[in-house]
Amino acid sequence: MGVTVLPDLGTEILIPVCAIIGIGFSIFQWMLVSKVKLTSGSAASNNSGGSGKNGHGDYLIEEEEGINDHNTVLKCAEIQNAISEAASGRSTLMPTGWEWYFLPPIVFLEFFLDLQITDGSRALLLTSCFLGEWLAMKYTSSFWRGHILDCATSFLYTEYQYVGIFMVAFAILIFVFLGSVKGFSTKSQPCTYEPLKFCKPALATAAFSTIAFVLGAVTSVISGFLGMKIATYANARTTLEARKGVGKAFITAFRSGAVMGFLLAANGLLVLYIAINLFKLYYGDDWEGLFEAITGYGLGGSSMALFGRVGGGIYTKAADVGADLVGKVEMNIPEDDPRNPAVIADNVGDNVGDIAGMGSDLFGSYAESSCAALVVASISSFGINHEFTPMLYPLIVSSVGIIVCLLTTLFATDFFEIKAVNEIEPALKNQLIISTVLMTIGIAIVSWVALPSSFTIFNFGTQKVVKNWQLFLCVAVGLWAGLIIGFVTEYYTSNAYSPVQDVADSCRTGAATNVIFGLALGYKSVIIPIFAIAVSIFVSFSFAAIDNAGGIAEMAGMSHRIRERTDALDAAGNTTAAIGKGFAIGSAALVSLALFGAFVSRASISNVDVLTPKVFIGLIVGAMLPYWFSAMTMKSVGSAALKMVEEVRRQFKTIPGLLEGTAKPDYATCVKISTDASIKEMIPPGALVMLTPLIVGIFFGVETLSGVLAGALVSGVQVAISASNTGGAWDNAKKYIEAGVSEHAMSLGPKGSDPHKAAVIGDTIGDPLKDTSGPSLNILIKLMAVESLVFAPFFATHGGLLFKIF
Amino acid sequence: MGVTVLPDLGTEILIPVCAIIGIGFSIFQWMLVSKVKLTSGSAASNNSGGSGKNGHGDYLIEEEEGINDHNTVLKCAEIQNAISEAASGRSTLMPTGWEWYFLPPIVFLEFFLDLQITDGSRALLLTSCFLGEWLAMKYTSSFWRGHILDCATSFLYTEYQYVGIFMVAFAILIFVFLGSVKGFSTKSQPCTYEPLKFCKPALATAAFSTIAFVLGAVTSVISGFLGMKIATYANARTTLEARKGVGKAFITAFRSGAVMGFLLAANGLLVLYIAINLFKLYYGDDWEGLFEAITGYGLGGSSMALFGRVGGGIYTKAADVGADLVGKVEMNIPEDDPRNPAVIADNVGDNVGDIAGMGSDLFGSYAESSCAALVVASISSFGINHEFTPMLYPLIVSSVGIIVCLLTTLFATDFFEIKAVNEIEPALKNQLIISTVLMTIGIAIVSWVALPSSFTIFNFGTQKVVKNWQLFLCVAVGLWAGLIIGFVTEYYTSNAYSPVQDVADSCRTGAATNVIFGLALGYKSVIIPIFAIAVSIFVSFSFAAIDNAGGIAEMAGMSHRIRERTDALDAAGNTTAAIGKGFAIGSAALVSLALFGAFVSRASISNVDVLTPKVFIGLIVGAMLPYWFSAMTMKSVGSAALKMVEEVRRQFKTIPGLLEGTAKPDYATCVKISTDASIKEMIPPGALVMLTPLIVGIFFGVETLSGVLAGALVSGVQVAISASNTGGAWDNAKKYIEAGVSEHAMSLGPKGSDPHKAAVIGDTIGDPLKDTSGPSLNILIKLMAVESLVFAPFFATHGGLLFKIF
Repeated sequence: MGVTVLPDLGTEILIPVCAIIGIGFSIFQWMLVSKVKLTSGSAASNNSGGSGKNGHGDYLIEEEEGINDHNTVLKCAEIQNAISEAASGRSTLMPTGWEWYFLPPIVFLEFFLDLQITDGSRALLLTSCFLGEWLAMKYTSSFWRGHILDCATSFLYTEYQYVGIFMVAFAILIFVFLGSVKGFSTKSQPCTYEPLKFCKPALATAAFSTIAFVLGAVTSVISGFLGMKIATYANARTTLEARKGVGKAFITAFRSGAVMGFLLAANGLLVLYIAINLFKLYYGDDWEGLFEAITGYGLGGSSMALFGRVGGGIYTKAADVGADLVGKVEMNIPEDDPRNPAVIADNVGDNVGDIAGMGSDLFGSYAESSCAALVVASISSFGINHEFTPMLYPLIVSSVGIIVCLLTTLFATDFFEIKAVNEIEPALKNQLIISTVLMTIGIAIVSWVALPSSFTIFNFGTQKVVKNWQLFLCVAVGLWAGLIIGFVTEYYTSNAYSPVQDVADSCRTGAATNVIFGLALGYKSVIIPIFAIAVSIFVSFSFAAIDNAGGIAEMAGMSHRIRERTDALDAAGNTTAAIGKGFAIGSAALVSLALFGAFVSRASISNVDVLTPKVFIGLIVGAMLPYWFSAMTMKSVGSAALKMVEEVRRQFKTIPGLLEGTAKPDYATCVKISTDASIKEMIPPGALVMLTPLIVGIFFGVETLSGVLAGALVSGVQVAISASNTGGAWDNAKKYIEAGVSEHAMSLGPKGSDPHKAAVIGDTIGDPLKDTSGPSLNILIKLMAVESLVFAPFFATHGGLLFKIF
Repeated sequence: MGVTVLPDLGTEILIPVCAIIGIGFSIFQWMLVSKVKLTSGSAASNNSGGSGKNGHGDYLIEEEEGINDHNTVLKCAEIQNAISEAASGRSTLMPTGWEWYFLPPIVFLEFFLDLQITDGSRALLLTSCFLGEWLAMKYTSSFWRGHILDCATSFLYTEYQYVGIFMVAFAILIFVFLGSVKGFSTKSQPCTYEPLKFCKPALATAAFSTIAFVLGAVTSVISGFLGMKIATYANARTTLEARKGVGKAFITAFRSGAVMGFLLAANGLLVLYIAINLFKLYYGDDWEGLFEAITGYGLGGSSMALFGRVGGGIYTKAADVGADLVGKVEMNIPEDDPRNPAVIADNVGDNVGDIAGMGSDLFGSYAESSCAALVVASISSFGINHEFTPMLYPLIVSSVGIIVCLLTTLFATDFFEIKAVNEIEPALKNQLIISTVLMTIGIAIVSWVALPSSFTIFNFGTQKVVKNWQLFLCVAVGLWAGLIIGFVTEYYTSNAYSPVQDVADSCRTGAATNVIFGLALGYKSVIIPIFAIAVSIFVSFSFAAIDNAGGIAEMAGMSHRIRERTDALDAAGNTTAAIGKGFAIGSAALVSLALFGAFVSRASISNVDVLTPKVFIGLIVGAMLPYWFSAMTMKSVGSAALKMVEEVRRQFKTIPGLLEGTAKPDYATCVKISTDASIKEMIPPGALVMLTPLIVGIFFGVETLSGVLAGALVSGVQVAISASNTGGAWDNAKKYIEAGVSEHAMSLGPKGSDPHKAAVIGDTIGDPLKDTSGPSLNILIKLMAVESLVFAPFFATHGGLLFKIF
């Protein structure tokens, strides 16, 4: 048995302590954000009349109370009158009084960043001018906030009802399938990796896997919901602080991001840790079964994430595309103008898609990467020899990650001060670099104290001796690969660099060349990330064999922690959002590979030979799945947007006075279009992802399934990166023209010019690519892998029916 | 030794006889086409003045003489004055006299097919009206034809000069690399598969591979050139016949296609057959070396095809996109209007890209698939036991294919008569079905007479006994899979079905939704073809093991024969062109797999395990290559189109009277833009494809290269299918709106309406997707595989430097 510097008791204490520190820090940040009192804003809002009608006060608690009695989408229709009352209270576009409520910081800081290409002072001047004008168009009363939150909440309830049915059905499936592996026998059985010992019956693992699945699913749903509430709460404060200056706004936005990031990460770690310890009460010495059961946690988390991302993604993009196409392009009214009938649906979409969906996704990624690492560790010498501390190495790395991120956060909020808008982006980039450097040190320490200096990894029957510094290298390479991917992504999607400027320039000759250039940019942006992924995979493989991609998975977990903050600090606009997406895709590839490795181990496959027909057909069909999935989601967004456009056009045609601002639009119908589309259309892509591993496993067996996983992985990564970056580039090319801060940009503008119109078309096309298909593909890759892992024993025992019959 | 019904002498006679029958049939069709005298048209052209100035008479021979003294692109500038003289001879748009010259049948029949959704009689009426008007805009004098042919020829000369340099350099590389395998030793060596026997030295194989490479390259270039000449010659006749009725035009177009198809196929077969017999004089009993050397033929053919496709594709699409964007969209002048400065470049592009490029490509595919099948056969029991007839089974199948296609052609030209435009598409589809049925019978007979009833295939050291009916099944399944792929492609790209109609409908809400729907359609269209490919791969694998994918390769060869005709009958418009592209991609996948199998055998790799790092990084990087390649080609088209647009705009602005038709445009500058772009931009993508296998093989070794090939294959197929179908669907959605033959279509039109404008944008975006990236990706997949195969002994001996050093 190897000796570790850190005693087991230390591990038992370290992990929950770090998790609690994370939660505590999250609450502390929350309090700091809460100090921003909204009364000053509310006072102003009283002028607009009708404030407080729905009981939405200044504090989150009250807000939460306010929504509990609205739990169906239909209720949204009822509130429509109240909204329009307030809206019609304004005779002109200039509001009589308005709060700085519910302006998502994502939009706000995005706006700053667009201006950041010019010099600071001018930008600030522009910002304050534009911002006033822009805000005037939006959020004219406190009703807005309340109603949007109501609609978002009621949508989520509806979504969760459907997803809940799925969850129950799938939980039963897991229990039945895994239980049937040994014919529902309640007898102990020889362990797979140590045949001389006896392990708990398969039926127990089936039951615990089911429990873990439900636990993961529920935690994921709560993460998404909490995320949305926090974001809504914090947004109002950030917007308010924006009046005091860039620095204050930045810190508030950053803190809000930290609330969400730390809460989700620490919560995920704590729930996992508690689950392991509770399961251990039953499993005792049988770690093999214990960590098999725990994988259900990852499956639960990520399957909810899939529905959240897909459903939310369709919702938000249908509304967004629909609202933009008529409002901005045809009617020439600004974004988020209350006269646009789809404006409520659009804003609700931001909440359910970009925030709640993202929250579930972040948790899902975390759960998956941890489970992959744990199951791999459990069949290494740690698992066999019951070395508790190295066994929990993945969780210790996560724990240290919380501390590192905490320190990193202080750099942004306390050690340096942001004085101008053009300092924001460098500050965020520094965050990434600082956290990567600190984390590298952190991993080095953890690898030194929590791992024996040398240990054995089981690589398909053969054993491989690995040194602790080798495992450190594996994790560190992944960490830095993530950083490179992030920066490459930024290069291709930020309008500070030539690629996006070229795309903007191509708008000169119309939408067609814009689209051609955008697609080409997306394809090109795949190159370096793929090399970075390849290098990190190779290093990890070489040092620690595939099935120890657990190391890489852990890096993925890390990147996610960073990304949580970046993403919640989405805040920081498109560019950092793009970095976040870059991380997400890179980590999805690595997590999926780790899960794939774990699956192969658990299914007892000795090699996955491309030259065998079973594997090759899996490979080519797997490579097709991302296309099938994208076709579904894009078509869904397109169809829903088409309906939305026609509804908005109909309203502008049939409601007299709507364009003049004297009549009220019918927001409810637009909300209904998005809701119906989202609920209905999330089922086919969800089914594709969830059923494929089952069908392939049952009918074609584990070899073909291996091929499918590998194919989906290598093909999906490319589609996801190119879709995200193409979309991001179009978005920023449009903003580049709009901002007009260089001579070149000015020659293409102003708003409403032909090149600008072409840029808007590109931006609209990019919406479903970058916000629906792209992010969902990450989940597709990982989810199929984790599902295969959970069902591996079943497939290995009863799968491959077709080949057994013929 | 197995016994075959067909004696060896029979084989020796059968193959060349079939090839000569093919060539004879081609000449016979040529004569039939030539019977259409152009004098009637020329008479009319005399009115326009200046006819015959460049010595372009009515017969091909004279035309060929005419161009020999124009062999640089710059000459194109000199002829500009002549063109404009003739053009300025017309005071209005209506020509004073014009020939039915040089109207490509592709455009002509496309036009018919668009109308084919309505009832026959009305369509014919419409056609004759529209056609007259449309032709009036174009080809006003015999100068057009001559000048376009001159420019196309001079471009090809320029292209071939550059490509020639590459060819020489690469030939040297092949000789040096393959020669170095045994250190340039001139001594005989033990054979790889029969170590007890002695084979010819590696140096000899290096020399013969080099010769075969040059032979393949030269044949490919000649194929492309001949193709262009035949097409140009036949087009004029087809157009002339169009005046006499649909039936006559169809038969003439079909015959022209047959001239090209039969000539290329029969010529490819004959050259290969002669080469084998000549090489045999040296090699004698050493079949292993003989067929290794022969693979150079495939590499030569397909590397020329790559440059032809990429260079031609960039040329034609830059001109096309540029001409359309300004001419059709901005200036509202019809397609191919002589006032458009890019019109000559556009028409030259049709010749060098769509026709010459295609000719090279067809030949390349043929050469590759035959070589793959032969090299696989050479290491089976046929090769070891020197069974000549079964050894040449692939060539016998090709020979029978020529006869089958000859019979099938008669169905179109002699057994049935086309009376209305709506009979054309069914007639072509019937051709595909008839040829597939006949070929299935043909393969059955060949499998029975040319194969022993049972024989041995070497599958990585293990032996597998295969029955002749099993090999028949392998080939037949591929044949039918091709048919399914073709029809699925048609379903997704023909405007007779709902997918394209949905895309057209989405134009209602603008270009953005059109693009979203189009991309989704392309993604979706991947599904069934991939399943078809997977099934045929699986069947072939199961019956005959991977390394006998030779069977599949042969099917690919077959599909190509069909496709040659379909493609040359491009003729038959977008829909059949789409079917052709479907075939091409399906067969590329299978040919590439066959080559991959051959490579693995030749490099002595026993398995390609995805779980090893060397293979996995290859897989993920390989899957990235199609994106990199597409990024290059699309960006090239985009940049060149941008320049073209600005030049055309400049001319419309600065040349007074251009729009009114009183002044002459500067065609030469536009031709120069396309030429420069094409020559310059074809190098990077060409280098990517040609260098990747070399770099990977030399530095990372054969395992990683296997991964790269598999990754590029499974990913490239998806990109190619979706790109082709998206582009095809956009094109037909536009035509659907333009034709306006249903109530739905009329509600979207007419030309110039907003939905139509949106459709034009989609069409323009689709151009580089379907005509540059898509078809080139097929070549990428195959070329990397055949190159790896040729260099396999070198990589196996000296490759993997990086891993050897570290």
